[in-house]
Amino acid sequence: MKKDPRQVSMAVIRRLPKYHRQLQELMESEVNRISSKELSELIGFTASQIRQDLNCFGGFGQQGYGYDVEALYQEIGRILGLTKEYNAVVVGAGNLGQAIANYSHFEKEGFHILALFEKNPRLIGLQIRGLPVLDVEDLQDFGQQHTVDIGIICTNKDGAQDVADQLVRLPVRAIWNFAPVDIEVPENVVVENVHLSDSLHVISYLLHLQEEEGASD
Amino acid sequence: MKKDPRQVSMAVIRRLPKYHRQLQELMESEVNRISSKELSELIGFTASQIRQDLNCFGGFGQQGYGYDVEALYQEIGRILGLTKEYNAVVVGAGNLGQAIANYSHFEKEGFHILALFEKNPRLIGLQIRGLPVLDVEDLQDFGQQHTVDIGIICTNKDGAQDVADQLVRLPVRAIWNFAPVDIEVPENVVVENVHLSDSLHVISYLLHLQEEEGASD
Repeated sequence: MKKDPRQVSMAVIRRLPKYHRQLQELMESEVNRISSKELSELIGFTASQIRQDLNCFGGFGQQGYGYDVEALYQEIGRILGLTKEYNAVVVGAGNLGQAIANYSHFEKEGFHILALFEKNPRLIGLQIRGLPVLDVEDLQDFGQQHTVDIGIICTNKDGAQDVADQLVRLPVRAIWNFAPVDIEVPENVVVENVHLSDSLHVISYLLHLQEEEGASD
Repeated sequence: MKKDPRQVSMAVIRRLPKYHRQLQELMESEVNRISSKELSELIGFTASQIRQDLNCFGGFGQQGYGYDVEALYQEIGRILGLTKEYNAVVVGAGNLGQAIANYSHFEKEGFHILALFEKNPRLIGLQIRGLPVLDVEDLQDFGQQHTVDIGIICTNKDGAQDVADQLVRLPVRAIWNFAPVDIEVPENVVVENVHLSDSLHVISYLLHLQEEEGASD
């Protein structure tokens, strides 16, 4: 049964990008339809989980036929808002900021990076994939001339909250934060904190567990 | 009640790095003890979830006293295997590989990057934070001279599975994959695929939802 999107849990939403990615790969391999069981083997969720997740947004599948790969891909893309266009700026033009700006896949999905901002004078004036690296002092002026939907923070930990405050004043509607600290923003601003070390800690846990299992064998 | 660590769900494990990070910040602010209710406000999980999570590993808290911040921090670090030392190599020395190699925080947590590997001759021979960028052709030789626990893949999508296969032959025990494709490895190798665009898709979803709510007001 189709739910109001506002009632779908964030746990389901966080699984949708994975479905979207897997369906894209199936399309590239010219697979036209897939059962929840086959999708389960590819994606690692149970078939029952998959049926439950996708039912939240209305039934895409047909009993005995499975899912139409392209229709499901398009529909999940639409749910995720990937049919929209967003403008973004990157603050912090070090290696990570440059890596993000260089990742042309975002552009294809409608995320347009307009510029990078930086305080280090050695980086200001550079071009990254044709995008200018501007002085972070000019961020507010830039915000008066352009609509910026998303601010991407690629600074170090110490500068991150200050940059977040500046981005909120632009105003941006969302912040994608790569600095290794949780930033605080007003409630109406969407924030996603990406903590790279969290997944390294999970690796560490699993290696440690393997060692203990090896020791107890 | 304390569970056998092998019976703790991965959902709990994936929350532990967040507790660890939050407790570290509390220690830096010289907070010695904290209730599950206060921790809940900082971390965004419910107090009941927090008590349930931390009980999996034995009761750290005392009724009416709360949690001893440093003891809990140390214990979670121990569970996550952060008291161990791991050797790692980075394959792909572009911006993202360099950003990872430059991030000295990993070193402090016991993750020692030994070298970066690259096929682009313009990058081979560089030093990143004192670490050599070596020819990827020399990866197998390097593996015979050094114990490498973790391989970090920072190549593009097309090269990733081939690099993963090479890392498995080294052998590494775990792969941390930043290439935008899920890689396949034998069952005994730990793999964490980091898909940066997944969290961007969540931002996109939330912005899209805001727009629809705005439109229906």
